[in-house]
Amino acid sequence: MSRCIALLNGGGDCPGLNGVIRGVVRAAVLQRGWRVLGVEDGFDGLVEGPRCRELDLKSVCGILPRGGTILGTSNRGNPFRYPVANENGDVILKDVSRQVVDHFQKLGADALVAVGGDGTLKIARRLSDLGIPVVGVPKTIDNDLQETDVTFGYNTAVGIVTEALDRLQTTAESHHRVMVVEVMGRDAGWIALEAGIAGSAEVILLPEIPFDLDLVCDHIMDRRARGSRFSIIVVAEGAFPKGGRKIVQASADQTHGLERLGGIGHYVAAEIGRRKGLETRVVVLGHVQRGGTPSPFDRILASRFGVRAVQLIEREEYGHMVALRGRDVVSVPIEQAVDGQNLVDPDANLVWTAEQLGIMLGR
Amino acid sequence: MSRCIALLNGGGDCPGLNGVIRGVVRAAVLQRGWRVLGVEDGFDGLVEGPRCRELDLKSVCGILPRGGTILGTSNRGNPFRYPVANENGDVILKDVSRQVVDHFQKLGADALVAVGGDGTLKIARRLSDLGIPVVGVPKTIDNDLQETDVTFGYNTAVGIVTEALDRLQTTAESHHRVMVVEVMGRDAGWIALEAGIAGSAEVILLPEIPFDLDLVCDHIMDRRARGSRFSIIVVAEGAFPKGGRKIVQASADQTHGLERLGGIGHYVAAEIGRRKGLETRVVVLGHVQRGGTPSPFDRILASRFGVRAVQLIEREEYGHMVALRGRDVVSVPIEQAVDGQNLVDPDANLVWTAEQLGIMLGR
Amino acid sequence: MSRCIALLNGGGDCPGLNGVIRGVVRAAVLQRGWRVLGVEDGFDGLVEGPRCRELDLKSVCGILPRGGTILGTSNRGNPFRYPVANENGDVILKDVSRQVVDHFQKLGADALVAVGGDGTLKIARRLSDLGIPVVGVPKTIDNDLQETDVTFGYNTAVGIVTEALDRLQTTAESHHRVMVVEVMGRDAGWIALEAGIAGSAEVILLPEIPFDLDLVCDHIMDRRARGSRFSIIVVAEGAFPKGGRKIVQASADQTHGLERLGGIGHYVAAEIGRRKGLETRVVVLGHVQRGGTPSPFDRILASRFGVRAVQLIEREEYGHMVALRGRDVVSVPIEQAVDGQNLVDPDANLVWTAEQLGIMLGR
Amino acid sequence: MSRCIALLNGGGDCPGLNGVIRGVVRAAVLQRGWRVLGVEDGFDGLVEGPRCRELDLKSVCGILPRGGTILGTSNRGNPFRYPVANENGDVILKDVSRQVVDHFQKLGADALVAVGGDGTLKIARRLSDLGIPVVGVPKTIDNDLQETDVTFGYNTAVGIVTEALDRLQTTAESHHRVMVVEVMGRDAGWIALEAGIAGSAEVILLPEIPFDLDLVCDHIMDRRARGSRFSIIVVAEGAFPKGGRKIVQASADQTHGLERLGGIGHYVAAEIGRRKGLETRVVVLGHVQRGGTPSPFDRILASRFGVRAVQLIEREEYGHMVALRGRDVVSVPIEQAVDGQNLVDPDANLVWTAEQLGIMLGR
Repeated sequence: MSRCIALLNGGGDCPGLNGVIRGVVRAAVLQRGWRVLGVEDGFDGLVEGPRCRELDLKSVCGILPRGGTILGTSNRGNPFRYPVANENGDVILKDVSRQVVDHFQKLGADALVAVGGDGTLKIARRLSDLGIPVVGVPKTIDNDLQETDVTFGYNTAVGIVTEALDRLQTTAESHHRVMVVEVMGRDAGWIALEAGIAGSAEVILLPEIPFDLDLVCDHIMDRRARGSRFSIIVVAEGAFPKGGRKIVQASADQTHGLERLGGIGHYVAAEIGRRKGLETRVVVLGHVQRGGTPSPFDRILASRFGVRAVQLIEREEYGHMVALRGRDVVSVPIEQAVDGQNLVDPDANLVWTAEQLGIMLGR
Repeated sequence: MSRCIALLNGGGDCPGLNGVIRGVVRAAVLQRGWRVLGVEDGFDGLVEGPRCRELDLKSVCGILPRGGTILGTSNRGNPFRYPVANENGDVILKDVSRQVVDHFQKLGADALVAVGGDGTLKIARRLSDLGIPVVGVPKTIDNDLQETDVTFGYNTAVGIVTEALDRLQTTAESHHRVMVVEVMGRDAGWIALEAGIAGSAEVILLPEIPFDLDLVCDHIMDRRARGSRFSIIVVAEGAFPKGGRKIVQASADQTHGLERLGGIGHYVAAEIGRRKGLETRVVVLGHVQRGGTPSPFDRILASRFGVRAVQLIEREEYGHMVALRGRDVVSVPIEQAVDGQNLVDPDANLVWTAEQLGIMLGR
Repeated sequence: MSRCIALLNGGGDCPGLNGVIRGVVRAAVLQRGWRVLGVEDGFDGLVEGPRCRELDLKSVCGILPRGGTILGTSNRGNPFRYPVANENGDVILKDVSRQVVDHFQKLGADALVAVGGDGTLKIARRLSDLGIPVVGVPKTIDNDLQETDVTFGYNTAVGIVTEALDRLQTTAESHHRVMVVEVMGRDAGWIALEAGIAGSAEVILLPEIPFDLDLVCDHIMDRRARGSRFSIIVVAEGAFPKGGRKIVQASADQTHGLERLGGIGHYVAAEIGRRKGLETRVVVLGHVQRGGTPSPFDRILASRFGVRAVQLIEREEYGHMVALRGRDVVSVPIEQAVDGQNLVDPDANLVWTAEQLGIMLGR
Repeated sequence: MSRCIALLNGGGDCPGLNGVIRGVVRAAVLQRGWRVLGVEDGFDGLVEGPRCRELDLKSVCGILPRGGTILGTSNRGNPFRYPVANENGDVILKDVSRQVVDHFQKLGADALVAVGGDGTLKIARRLSDLGIPVVGVPKTIDNDLQETDVTFGYNTAVGIVTEALDRLQTTAESHHRVMVVEVMGRDAGWIALEAGIAGSAEVILLPEIPFDLDLVCDHIMDRRARGSRFSIIVVAEGAFPKGGRKIVQASADQTHGLERLGGIGHYVAAEIGRRKGLETRVVVLGHVQRGGTPSPFDRILASRFGVRAVQLIEREEYGHMVALRGRDVVSVPIEQAVDGQNLVDPDANLVWTAEQLGIMLGR
C-alpha cells in the first residue's frame, strides 16, 4: 500500500540530520514507492502554511556527509506554547496544536516522522494523543536521551572537542599553562567525559559529580610538583561546585543576555588563578560542537534510524521511536524515552576508567 | 603488593596501541606503584635479549593521540615457529618458546600483557600453558575478533576509508565514473560495510556474501538509467565472486611478491569495464588504513582495555583477555576469543540497513 | 552594459572548481547584473546540444567547500579531435570545432570562461582563433602550468598526501619498514617534493631528477646503521631511473590496461627489496589526491581567479588567462602559459632545502 | 669549522616551531657536524641557569607534525624588563640583559637563533647590539611581520578558522541565524580576511577598516530580503567601529582580568541583535587557533627557515633574519623587520576580491 510520510526536524543543529532524512527517503521512495514530504523549519512549518516540499531521491543525493539539515529547524516552535502577537502587538504564548493537526491532515500524509531531542519528542507524543500518527527519531549531541544506547551527533561532537583538546595540549605544554575548556552537554557530562579522556585531560568536571575545587587545585599542584607544569581541565557547561550552583548562575545573570559570557569555565579558571596564582586560559568551544560534517558513526546511526522509522510506519507502530540497543535498532514508546534523562552514572565503568588513568573528577 | 608487568604488542600496526600502553602504565605505576617493562618489537624482544625498557609516567606522556606503538611490533615473531638460520645458513622455523619463558623469568616480571590480534593471542594462550601468567588485549583494525563487541583501531580505519570515499565521490560524480575502492579487512567485511554505508557507496562487496557480478552490473546500469552516471563500489580485500575465489587467488600469485598488485578490486573494475564498456578506476587504499592518530573512540577503548588489563593482573585472572560488552569492559578466556572469527552476519540489522538504503551487496 | 558569460570546466577533477564557478557568478550576477550559463561536462556540453543551465546566486550557494564541480567535466572532449562513430560504427576522431562555435553563438553568450589545465587551455586558445571570446582559468593539481605562481587544487593535493604520509610514518616506524608511496604529478615533481618534505620523507624521487637507485639503497642502509630502521620513500608517478625510463614503461605495458598497476612505485619497492633484502610496502595513493573539499588556500585562489576572470571579460582581455603573481592576480596571454611546463628546477631553493634536511633525491 | 648554535623560541605558541628546530638541527648536525643547544622556555632559559639541552638528530625525530615546541616558550621573558622580586617581595621589572650575555658566553655557543614574533625579534636585535651573534626566525600566527611574504603558523591558523566556519555555516543555515565569530590576529586582519573568504563569510570586519555597523546591518537585512536568512560574520579581535575603539576597550576593562570576555565579537552580536531584533550567536575561537599539528605549508616554511638560519650563521650574517620572498628564502636585517607591521592594505587585490564576492567589509 502506498503511503505518504511527512518529516520534520526540531531543536538545535545536530550532525546526522541529513542522514536521517536520506534514510527515510531512500527506504520509503526507493524501496517502497511511497512519497515523503519534508516540513520546513520544524514545527513552525506545520503551524504556518503548511510549508513543505516533496523529497525525491535526487533531493537527498549527496547529503549524507553534509552538516545541518536541508529542511531547516527551529528551537522555538512548540505548537502548545507558540509565540503569537496579540491585538496589542505583544507576543504571547498560545496553544496552536489544533492548527497543526489541521495542517497535517491537509497535507494528506499518513504519518509524521519527528526527529528531535527531549523537547521535540515530548511535543510529538502530545501530537500523537491528538491523533497524528507519529514516529520519533531521537537526536541530540548531548547524548542525554534515555532508552537508546547513544544518539547521533554525539560521536561527532566528541570528535570536535577531542581535536580542539589536541590543539590546546601543545599550547598548554609549551607555555606551562592551565587551560580550561568549557564544552556542551546541558545537564549531562557525556561530551566532557569522553572527549576529556580522549583528549588527555588532567581534570574533568561533570554535572553529575559536583566538584570540590580544592581537590582540583591540589591535583594541579601535585602534578606541577612531579614536573608537569601544564594541565587541561575540561568542564561540562552544566558542571557546578559542591553546594554552589547558585554562585555560577548569578554571574551568568550579569551578562545581560550575552550568550555564554562568564559561564562555569570562566569561574573555574578565575578561581584556580586566584587560589594558586597560576596562569590560566579559558576556551568556550560553543557552537562549533554542533555543526559540520558528521562522523562515520553518526552517518551510519542516522541512516539506520531513518530506514527503521519507515519500517515502524509500515508496521504502524505509532507513538514509538527508534533506538539503538547493542547491535540492533529497536522500537520503544516515546513516552518511556522522554520520562527522564540519560546521565553519567558516577559509578560506571567509564568513570572508573577515567580515575584509573589518574584523571581528577573533583571528588 | 607491588608487581612488575611486562607488556608487548604483536602483529600489524593499529591506531590505539599507544593508548593501551599508556593505560597500563598509568593504572599500574600511578595508581598502584607497580613497575612496567615494555618489550620491544613484539615477541622478537622476548626471544632475543630480552630487549625491553622501563616504562615510567614520563615515557607515556603525550602518546595517546599518536599512531603506531612506542614499543615497536613484529609480524613475524611467533616463538613456536621462529625463523632461525641453521648451520648451512638456511632459514628454518624453530620452536624457541622455551627461550621466551626463560627470558620472561629473567625479567622478573609477574605477568605479561600481550596486545594483539588472532595470531598474537593464540601465541599468548600457548605461552600461558607454558606457565607465563598472561593477560590478553584484543587488537585489530579488521574487527574480526570474537567475544568483544569491537576492537580498537577499527573505528579509525572506518574513518579513514570514509574520508577517502568522500573525496572520491566528488571525482566520480564530476566525471560520471565508476570508482572501485578496495579496502582492508582480511576475511571480514566490517570495514567495507560500515565505511561503505558512511561513504554513500552504491555497491559493497563483502567476503561474507559471495557476489554475483551480473547483479552489480545491472544495478549500475539501472542507476545510470535513472540519471546517476557515477557509482562508488567498495570491495573488501577478501571479497570474491560466487564460486570463484580461485580465479582471484591465481591472479594474486602472478604478482611475484609485489603486495596487493591485481587484487579483487582490479578484477571487479576490469570486469565491469569489459562487460558494460564503462570507464572505471581502481583505488587500493592500502596501509594508510592502519596508521596515524586514533579516533576518540579508539583512544577511549584502548585506554579502557589498558587499565582493565592491569585489574585482571591484580585479580590474577590469567589466561583471560579484556573485551567490550555493551557499556562495560569485561574479562573472557583467551581460548574462547581465538576459537573462531567475528564475521558480518548476512542477516544482521546493519546489512538490512544497507539494502534498505538501496546499496547493492551483490546478492 | 549587461553581458552573458558561458562557463565550462575541462579535464580532471580538481579541488577549487566550484570556487571558480561561485566567484564568476557572484562577480558577474551580484556585482554587475550579468548572466552566467554553466556548460555541462566540459567541451562535451558545447559539442552536443548545447547543454547548459543558468547559474544564479542560489545555484552557487554553499558550494565553496565542496569538491568536484557542479557542472561536471570531461577528460575527453577535445572538439578538434572528438570521438564520433562513423558509418561503420567505428569510433573516429573528428574536428567538430565548427559545431562548438555554432553552439556557442546559439547560446547568445558574450564570452566563454574555460577552466582547465594544459589541454583545456590549448583548446581554448584555438577556439579563440576561431572567434570565440575566451578567458582562461588555469587549473591542475599537478602545478605544472607556467605563468602562474601556483594553481588551485595543488595545495589540497599536497595536504592529502602529507596526511597519508603522517599515517604511514607511524606504521613504517612501528614495523621498521621501507614504505614506498607513489603520488600524482604527471611530468612534474611538485606534489612529491612538497608533500615529501612536509611528510618527513627520507627519499623523494622526482621526474626532474632521474634517480640512481644505488644511492637510494645506500641512504637507507646508512640510516639503518644509525639506528633508524624505517624509511618513507615518496615517488612521483613520472619519476624514472637514470637512463631507464623504458624499463618502467615496459612493466606498465604488461598490465593489460589496468590502471596504475605496476607503476614506478612498485618498481622502486621491488628493486630495494631485491637488492637489500628489506621488507618493503607500496601505497599508490591514486584518485584520492584529486577530490574532496578544497583547502582554504585553494578556495581563496579559486575565488580570486573567478572574480578576476569576470574583470577580464569586462575589459575584453580575450585570449588571456588569470594567473597568480606574488600577491596579485594578473592577466597573461593563454599562448604563453601553454608553451611549456612548470617543472621543478633541480637548483631551486626548495630542492636545496630538501637536501639540507638530509632528504635523498637520488642524485 | 665546527660550531655550536644555541636556539630559543619566544612568545606565543605557533604551529611550525618544531619544524624550525628540526630544520636547524638537521642542517647543522647532519650536514655540517655542528652542535645545537636548545634553550628551554625562551629567554627565561638564558636568564636563569642557563637551562638548555643538547639537540641531536634523535631528539628531533618525528617532531615535524607536532604542534607546540619541544623547548617550551615564554610570553614574559624580556631580559630588558624581567620580573624579579625585590627585597620587599614585590615584583619589579629589571634589566638582566648582562646576565643573559654572561650565560650565553658560558654556553660556549658561537651564535644564537631566536625564533619569535615582533617582541622576541626586538629583544634579539638589542642582544645583538650587546655582542651576541644573533640570527632571527620570524614567527607569528597573525602574519603581522614585515619583510617576509608570510610567517609560518599563519596558514595553519587560517585552516583551523575555516574549518570552524564550515561547521558554523551548517548550523547558521539550519537555524536562520546570525553567527558572529571572533578570531585572532592582534592589530592585523589577515586571519579574518583569508579565513572569512575561505569560509564563505557574509561580513568580515578588520582592524584596518573601521566598520560602520549600519552598513553591516543593512547588508544582513538585504540578504534576508533575498531569502538567505543566515549570515556568518567574522570579526578580527582588533576590529573596531568607526571612531569607536574606546567603547570596546571600556567593556573589556569591566571583565576583571577574565580573558577575552566581552570582546568585539560580543559587541557586534549584541548591537545587531539590539538594532534589528535578530537572533545572534557569538563564538570566540580563542587558543585553538594557535596550537596543534601544522599544515603542510607551515611545515615546509618552518623547515626552510630552519635550514636557512644555519646558512646565515655559516656566512656570519648576524643581526639578520630569514624571510620568504616569492619562491626564495632570503636574509634581511632584523631591524628592518621590526620597524613597523604587516597590515592588510585596504586597497589590496585580496580585499577587492572579497568585495567582488559580495562580502561586506563595513565600509
